Amino acid sequence: MTSAASRQGLLIVYTGQGKGKTTAALGLVLRALGHGLKPCVIQFIKSERGRWGETIMAERLGIAWHALGQGFVFDPAGQHQDAALAREGWALAQEQIASGAYDLVVLDEFTYLCRFGWLDADAVVAWLSQHRPSQVHVVITGRDAPAALLAAADLVTEMVMVKHPHDAGVRAQPGIEF
Amino acid sequence: MTSAASRQGLLIVYTGQGKGKTTAALGLVLRALGHGLKPCVIQFIKSERGRWGETIMAERLGIAWHALGQGFVFDPAGQHQDAALAREGWALAQEQIASGAYDLVVLDEFTYLCRFGWLDADAVVAWLSQHRPSQVHVVITGRDAPAALLAAADLVTEMVMVKHPHDAGVRAQPGIEF
Repeated sequence: MTSAASRQGLLIVYTGQGKGKTTAALGLVLRALGHGLKPCVIQFIKSERGRWGETIMAERLGIAWHALGQGFVFDPAGQHQDAALAREGWALAQEQIASGAYDLVVLDEFTYLCRFGWLDADAVVAWLSQHRPSQVHVVITGRDAPAALLAAADLVTEMVMVKHPHDAGVRAQPGIEF
Repeated sequence: MTSAASRQGLLIVYTGQGKGKTTAALGLVLRALGHGLKPCVIQFIKSERGRWGETIMAERLGIAWHALGQGFVFDPAGQHQDAALAREGWALAQEQIASGAYDLVVLDEFTYLCRFGWLDADAVVAWLSQHRPSQVHVVITGRDAPAALLAAADLVTEMVMVKHPHDAGVRAQPGIEF
């Protein structure tokens, strides 16, 4: 158990086109649990497969887990609805981060909410800088992280896709890709 | 639980100078556990902190975990000893992979064994192509993955360091970096 006073919360961004962004965030969750830290995961987009390996483990390990992805439409006709859902999701994230109940909050696939114009990246960064408790780590994943977020982050890794199994016609494998 | 017959084992490489390589491998371990797959982790280098978050979780979750790092000297005078340890570690890895007892075998920081000349990358790749059971996923992490390994892999992500907290004088944080 690490005391909150000795910790300095980091703002971590995993971005880029390659595989491993969400996966690395899950690795941080595992590592955090080992140190007695409390993680919270909010998944903004993924939902299509229902029972992911990680959600099964989240239940088993009692990890706070919110999957919001089902609602997004990704269709010009559904823009209004998507923007409203994005704001709701961000409100939930703000609540979890500001609560101080968690040591590590993962906002998985969050960058898309900025990229699609549903949220303003400058406003997100401004809120984080003002309201994130100093000991709380926040991990944001997704392609095309906005410049304002990169500028504000403590740690940024770009996952570059060098080779992808779908290139060779291999189907997504359970336990690896979901 | 996914049947072995429907699975195609992937050779996955996380390389590059950025943070997130070992962390992503840990995420795959978590995801695999959720699907009822059996992971085995062999850590070739890391050991200096003793009680890492991931090793604590490995004990708690009953993950097969081998930390071999303590012996390496990284000193010209210790080359002979290091090479012998590398060969022993690789022999252990071969045993775990070929046994078929595991669905996912992580060789963490393994690339250094090739980079330092302790193991021959071509021989490693040839062995994997001949002896890895077809349903077994193997994940190799570390900087400077040898070209032969990249050529043989199904999935390669390069973690590029965009920004690192040590740049700003922030000390390594428990639950994040270890």
